[in-house]
This record gives sequence, C-alpha cells and structure tokens, in this order.
Amino acid sequence: MENRIHNSYLASKVMSADQAAAQILPGMTVGMSGFTGSGYPKAVPLALAAQIESAHARGESFALKLLTGASTAPELDGALAKVGGIDFRLPYQSDPDLRTRINRGEIEYMDIHLGQVAQYTWFGFLGKLDMAVVEVSAILPDGRLVPSTSVGNNKTWLDLADKVIIEVNSAQPAGLDGMHDIYYGTALPPERKPIPLTGPDDRIGEPYLRVDPAKVVAVVETHGPDRLGRFSPPDESSIQIANHLVEFFRHEIAMGRLGEQLLPLQSGVGNIANAVLSGLRDGGFEGLTAFTEVIQDGMLDLIRTDTIRRASATALSLSPEGVEEFGRNIEHYRSRIVLRPQEISNHAELVRRLGCIAINGMVEADIYGNVNSTHVAGSSIINGIGGSGDFARNGFLSCFVTPSTAKNGAISCIVPMVSHVDHTEHDVAVVVTEQGLADLRGLSPKQRARAVINNCAHPDYRPLLQDYFERALRASPGKHTPHLLGEALSWHERFVASGHMKP
Amino acid sequence: MENRIHNSYLASKVMSADQAAAQILPGMTVGMSGFTGSGYPKAVPLALAAQIESAHARGESFALKLLTGASTAPELDGALAKVGGIDFRLPYQSDPDLRTRINRGEIEYMDIHLGQVAQYTWFGFLGKLDMAVVEVSAILPDGRLVPSTSVGNNKTWLDLADKVIIEVNSAQPAGLDGMHDIYYGTALPPERKPIPLTGPDDRIGEPYLRVDPAKVVAVVETHGPDRLGRFSPPDESSIQIANHLVEFFRHEIAMGRLGEQLLPLQSGVGNIANAVLSGLRDGGFEGLTAFTEVIQDGMLDLIRTDTIRRASATALSLSPEGVEEFGRNIEHYRSRIVLRPQEISNHAELVRRLGCIAINGMVEADIYGNVNSTHVAGSSIINGIGGSGDFARNGFLSCFVTPSTAKNGAISCIVPMVSHVDHTEHDVAVVVTEQGLADLRGLSPKQRARAVINNCAHPDYRPLLQDYFERALRASPGKHTPHLLGEALSWHERFVASGHMKP
Repeated sequence: MENRIHNSYLASKVMSADQAAAQILPGMTVGMSGFTGSGYPKAVPLALAAQIESAHARGESFALKLLTGASTAPELDGALAKVGGIDFRLPYQSDPDLRTRINRGEIEYMDIHLGQVAQYTWFGFLGKLDMAVVEVSAILPDGRLVPSTSVGNNKTWLDLADKVIIEVNSAQPAGLDGMHDIYYGTALPPERKPIPLTGPDDRIGEPYLRVDPAKVVAVVETHGPDRLGRFSPPDESSIQIANHLVEFFRHEIAMGRLGEQLLPLQSGVGNIANAVLSGLRDGGFEGLTAFTEVIQDGMLDLIRTDTIRRASATALSLSPEGVEEFGRNIEHYRSRIVLRPQEISNHAELVRRLGCIAINGMVEADIYGNVNSTHVAGSSIINGIGGSGDFARNGFLSCFVTPSTAKNGAISCIVPMVSHVDHTEHDVAVVVTEQGLADLRGLSPKQRARAVINNCAHPDYRPLLQDYFERALRASPGKHTPHLLGEALSWHERFVASGHMKP
Repeated sequence: MENRIHNSYLASKVMSADQAAAQILPGMTVGMSGFTGSGYPKAVPLALAAQIESAHARGESFALKLLTGASTAPELDGALAKVGGIDFRLPYQSDPDLRTRINRGEIEYMDIHLGQVAQYTWFGFLGKLDMAVVEVSAILPDGRLVPSTSVGNNKTWLDLADKVIIEVNSAQPAGLDGMHDIYYGTALPPERKPIPLTGPDDRIGEPYLRVDPAKVVAVVETHGPDRLGRFSPPDESSIQIANHLVEFFRHEIAMGRLGEQLLPLQSGVGNIANAVLSGLRDGGFEGLTAFTEVIQDGMLDLIRTDTIRRASATALSLSPEGVEEFGRNIEHYRSRIVLRPQEISNHAELVRRLGCIAINGMVEADIYGNVNSTHVAGSSIINGIGGSGDFARNGFLSCFVTPSTAKNGAISCIVPMVSHVDHTEHDVAVVVTEQGLADLRGLSPKQRARAVINNCAHPDYRPLLQDYFERALRASPGKHTPHLLGEALSWHERFVASGHMKP
C-alpha cells in the first residue's frame, strides 16, 4: 500500500479502523464524508457497525446522529442502519436498508437543501459536532489534506468537530491532487462578503483541506474503491425526454433568450440526466459549462469530447469504467474539472449569479406545476430533495423531468395534486416527460394546468386529468387554482389501496 | 401645484391623464409602479379605466397584461379590474375587486417571488413590455427621475418598456430626494458580477432613475397622496405572538447563536409584524437594522427612537399620520432609510449574505411545517406569496406567524396538511401562534409534528390534531411523514361544506 501520509505527527496517529471506531461513543453527532457514493470513509463505519452490534448484544444502547454530504454507500449508511446504529440522519440518503428503517419510523431523518447543511451547522442549528470522519486521498508534509473524490461538507466537519478521524485512501487516484478548490472565505453573518466567483471554473480557494492536528484522534489507512454502479445506456423514455429538452433549448436560442453555449448546466444524477447530456452532444452543442453537484460517467464523457469545456462539482461519482477512463486521461480532466465544497457548488448566491440551467428528476408533478421530489403517497421518503431546491429556486431555468408513468403504468407521474411538495408552483419553469414539454413560464395556474395535461400526461391518464380539471373549473369554490379537495389526493389513495392509480 | 419638472424636453411632453392613457392600447403588456399602496400612478390608470369602459360600451375588447411592483390601490387595480380591463396580472395583489375576479376565474393571475420579477422580465420570460407607467416625485434638469415612495420594479420597467408615461406627483415629500439607491450593476448571465452590498445601509447605486427621453410619450402632473390605511394598535393575539418571538430571540442570544443587535430584520406587513417590532423595543432591543420590503408606521416608529438604526426597503408605506411624522423629522429619517429596487431588497444573494431574520404571516401551517401563504381551501388566492419566499429560503431564520385560529374559531390555522404549499418543510424554521412557538430547526417530520401540535395549535383543535397524528403513525403506509390521505384535506373540505373545520 503506497504511503500517502507525509506528515510525521499525523503518521503517529495511524491505527486500525477498530481502534479509530472505538473513539466514537453512543449519542455522538458525527459528520462523515461522502457524496453520492464517492469519497465516503471505507473502514471506520464498518468497524463502528461491528462495535455497535456488540454493544447492542450486551444490552447497551448505541446510536448516532449522522450527518454527511449526501448519500453514501452500503458500507456506511447500510452497515450502520442494519445494526440500528443511527437514530437521526441528514441531509440525504439512498441506501435501501436505511430508507426502509426511516419509513418504518425507526430512524428520524431530516431532509434539507444540500447547499444549506454547512451554514446550518455553523449557525449551531444542528447541535454540536462531536466527531468528523473524513476520507482524503493523501496528507501533505505540512498536514494539509488532499481531498478525495468528493468534497461535500468535509471542510465544515473538519473545522467544527471536536475530534477528527481521517481515512487516507491510497486507492483514490493520485491525480486528484490539485483538482479541488476549497474556499475558506465563508463567514457568519453579519461578517459575510461576496463570494468572488463569476465563472463555473473560477478558482477562489486552495486545493487542500486544513485540519487542526491537535483534534485528530486517529488516522486510518485504506485502499478501496468508491462503490458506484455501472453506467447503463439511456432507455427510450429518457432519450425522448432529452430530445424534448434539447429542442426547447434550440428554441430558446432562436428566441434570443439563450446563447449557443447555453448557461452553466446543473444536472441531477441518473439515467435521464445522462440522456440529456448525450442529447446535447448529439444535438451539436459544444463549449458548454457545468456548475453542478456531481460528475457522473455521462458528464465525464462530454468533458472528454469537450462538449463540456469546464465543469464544477462537489463529487466525482464514476463507475469502475469511469474511474479507468478518468485515470487514462487524467491531465485532460484535471484542467477541466474543479471540485468544491457543496456549500459553494450549491450556493444560492452563485447559482443565481451564474444563471444555472437546472435539470432535476422528480417523483411527480401536479397539473399546477407543483413538484414532489421525495415522497411516495405523501408519507414514505425515497431519497431526499438533495440540491434540486438550491438550483430550481435560484437558477435561470428550473426544469423537472420524469417519465409520465411509473410501475408499468400503475402510477401517473402527473397528478391532480402532488402528495408532497418540494418545489412550489413559484419555482417550476419547465416540466418534461417522454410525452412532451410544458413551458410554464409566465403562466397562471389554469394556463399551466392545460399545458401540463396536454403536453406531459400519458394518454392513459390524460382524459382523467382533463376530467378532473374541467369538473374543478365548475365546482371548485375558488377558480384561481381549481381543486376538488375530496378528490385531489384520491389517485394516491387508490394506489395505496389497490396498487393502481386508475379507478 | 409646485413645478417638479425641471427638464424642458420632458416638460414639453406634459399632457392630461386622458391624453396619456389614450397611448395605452388593447392587448398591451404594461408595467406600472406601485408597491403596497405606495408610489402607484394616481391619474393615468383611472383615465385608462374610463377609456376601457367606453371601449367595452362600444363593443370593443380592451384588456391588458398588468405588471407592478406588488399590490397597488383601488385607483389602479380596483379601477381597472372593475371595468374588466385586466386579463393577466402579476406579481401580487390585494385589491378586493381584483381578487374577486381572479377567484371567479375571470382574470389570470401569476403569483411570483417579488425578488424574481425583474430578472424574469429581463430574461424575456414574461414577454415584451410595451408600456411603463411610473410615478416619480420630480424630474431633474438632466432628465433623471427622483423616485417616489416606492421603487419596486420601476428601474426595470423604464429600461425595458418600448414607451414610457411618467406621472410627477408633487404631493410626494420633496425630502424623498436622495433617499433612494438605484443599482445599475445588474446584468444577464453569464455577465453577472457580485452585488457589492455587505450591510443593510450600504449605498451601491445612485439616487435617481434613468430614462431614455425618446421613449417618453407622456408626462402627467398629479398631486395626490398614497392610499394607505390607518395604523391600528396591535391586538392581544399579535402581542402574544410578538412576545413569543422576542423571548425566542433572547434565548438565541443566550445560546450564542445571535448577537444583541440580532441580524437584519425582514418583516411582512400588517398587525402582527407591527406588534413584533413594538415587542422588540419593549423588550429592550436597540441598534437593530432592517433589510426588508416595506417600511410601515410600526417600523418608522422604531427608526424614530433608534431602536432600528438603519433600514433598507423598496417602499415607504405610511398612513396619513405616518406621512406627517415622516415630514416632521425628515432629516432624521433620510439618514437612516435607503429605498432600493425590489430586485435588490429581495435579492437571494443579499438576503443570504446579510443573514436576514425573516418574519412573515401565513394562512396556515401543517403539522410537518409546510406553510400556505396564499390560498383559502387550496383554490382561492388571497394576496400572494410576495417576498416571503425570497427571505424564508435564503435568510438566517425563517419565522412564520399566524393566530392559531381564524373566523372566530371556525378555522384552525394549524392543519393536518396544508391545502396549498408556498413554503416547504425545507424552508420553515420557526412557527409561532399566540399559543406558543415551535422551533423546527434540526428536526425530523415527526419531531416537528409534536412541536407544532403541542406549542402552536389552539386547545380547541389540539386534540383533533393529536388524534390525526397518532392514527397516522399507526395507519400511514410510510412513517417518515405519516399521513392519512383520505383525511389529510378533510378539515378544508368540511370548512367549504359547513363553514367550520370541526366535525
């Protein structure tokens, strides 16, 4: 295992994951690294899970309040959830075991804008941070840390935690050194100053994380890859959604509302996002930029071909093939990618200034343009709002995308009223399904309803939505946002009762 | 009537309101001045309403798309709505005639964050602006305009409209000259730069509005007051809400999360807002600042006593008594008040940087902390979201206040599920009623529900809410945000059917 620990004091803190994990005590609030399966600590959480399991076997209670950047991996969220080691979790999650326990009511989960986690911690709104557990890719002779594949909230965890455990993962590419930009200019109000970033690729900080060595209670050496799935080619529905969006961007350019290089793209994770990126390249776009949270294989591929010439993110979340490609052409990518803390990648001030084009997936939209990004039938959480609100509220354009149906047509993703609201009618500009695109800018609720029903609903559900809307136009007590309250959530009720939204 | 028109070219454009109004043609998109009943044009809209009425009498169709800063007055919204002269309206309204027609479905209304109207217009998302009708308090020899009691979107209207009608209102205090700060540094992305404001009272622009004289088709002289109601003393419920908030601020100071001078206050309009301001003074606070939308009598009084030492807003909305007091101590107020365009007063970048404490009224909150600021029973709009979202999302603290019941107890303002969402669970930190305060920071949905039910609900409704929550905990398919979908909106249904939320 290559030695990545070049500071002698911190080298003296090297110990096993078991010894390190033993420093984490019941009831602690712990900030861990990790953002969409990249850059999470690989060894300490597993060792901690084993210790928690033993404690429970001895009849002792042992659970943590766990904060991260975003979702992590089975070795972190999954392992700790399985042994009942988490009693409170924020700000995002996607692990099946963790999700199951949250929706059983066994774990309290707070769903929070990813761009606000750091400041909330600094404000003292989330309590005292007892411990940080942060993966880095190396320690410099002067004790500064070369970040790993994700930056997330690591700067904040290292700054604010009473104690720090560092995992040094020698399997992370050495070429990451120099790709990060850690901004140390944040402050608490009233001392805040403008953040001096005016382009997605501006460097406003330094490449390394700082840590007070006196707080470091353990350094653990690891050598393991991030756990990220294979990159699957886009399906037909995603390609159709992408085509609608690309056509829309072409139209906006023709109308003079966008330039040929668009504006910095923010794109959520997953299949549709990747299809949109491919669609942009196939549509002849070039010289684009991205100011986003995550660089996945799809975006890496666009950076490879210079369709995207500069990309800013907080995490590099690549499949094994992506990691290989990244290593092969490391010099190409190093000059084109900047990785930042998520408080900067998702900062309201910067998203607004840069005028990002936000493209995010959703669970469902209603006919009036309210969007549910998080809940099934109003009560079970899937993952979380993530950064979609940071970008949708403050960006130039907020686009939400979904196939028009789910579960083989049992669910319509366009409904009379969403069962949970994450993005209000005030924050949704464009809704896209494989059926088409509804441009909601400058429209009243009733005008929006007609656009969403006609352009986005699946033909199997369109007549039902039309019927609802027309009856609401007649019978609703108020006709600004016509609704039949007794029926507004009935599609979800039916789905819960019968497994199908249709009567 | 004092001559306030000191530019000879623009003086040559003086004409009657009737002549000016005749330049406004059917189907035009018109941007008018006006923000909460202050600074709206006094004469042209009335003349226009008469012309529209005549046109309709002749069987001609005549209606406009009308944009303003926020709400206006009966002489504008009321007069035009009554004659059917508006077919589309944004971004805010409070006139009874206009509201009635919107909720009858006769006028399309778009409810939009006040801080985003200007940029949406610049982006081209709201269509071409044909005409601006803007009240000012004087015209300088060089043709620049001394703004009136509100700035609102006037800079944008003057910059973007094809044609301009200026009303010069000599009844507006001459002392307004020099109080405004019009920032001309905004741009379209990707050309945007940081806005160089770091304190609520920073001056970053110039005191006057610019207009291309070639676009000015009419100048109309008026001499009339803004139309604002009397300032009523706070009622018992408002005082209790204020006391809860003041106690909370004291607690936050004690915990080290706020300084003695708090952070810049944003306070919505109305009785509760005024009570909170009085409560702060009575609670011994001093040297405070405000970065808000509107300065009403309540805030003026605090500026008089230097409880608030500096205040930034986009409108000075004073009662006749307030106007008198303002005139009496004009030099005191001039050095303490800055009036800005609403794109600056409500700017995401600045609200975030300054760390505003946002205090806004609401219609209802649900047990999970979602807030409805706009709709009755999900379908009829009251006024609009206004700037509450600009401040709630980006500020340091987002507080929402309401009496726990309305209509003599027929309505509970704490409900199982709000009938319309303007502020999501992610954006609501503190809920306050006369019953108490629920601090939702760092809590999961179920923890929030217990706090809201126990601290904020009226005792008449608390057992019903507890019962709903406990049954939902048992029967909800998902237990992250437990809901009984068939019942979640039943309180609103009952209210629509029987006039009372209780069974």
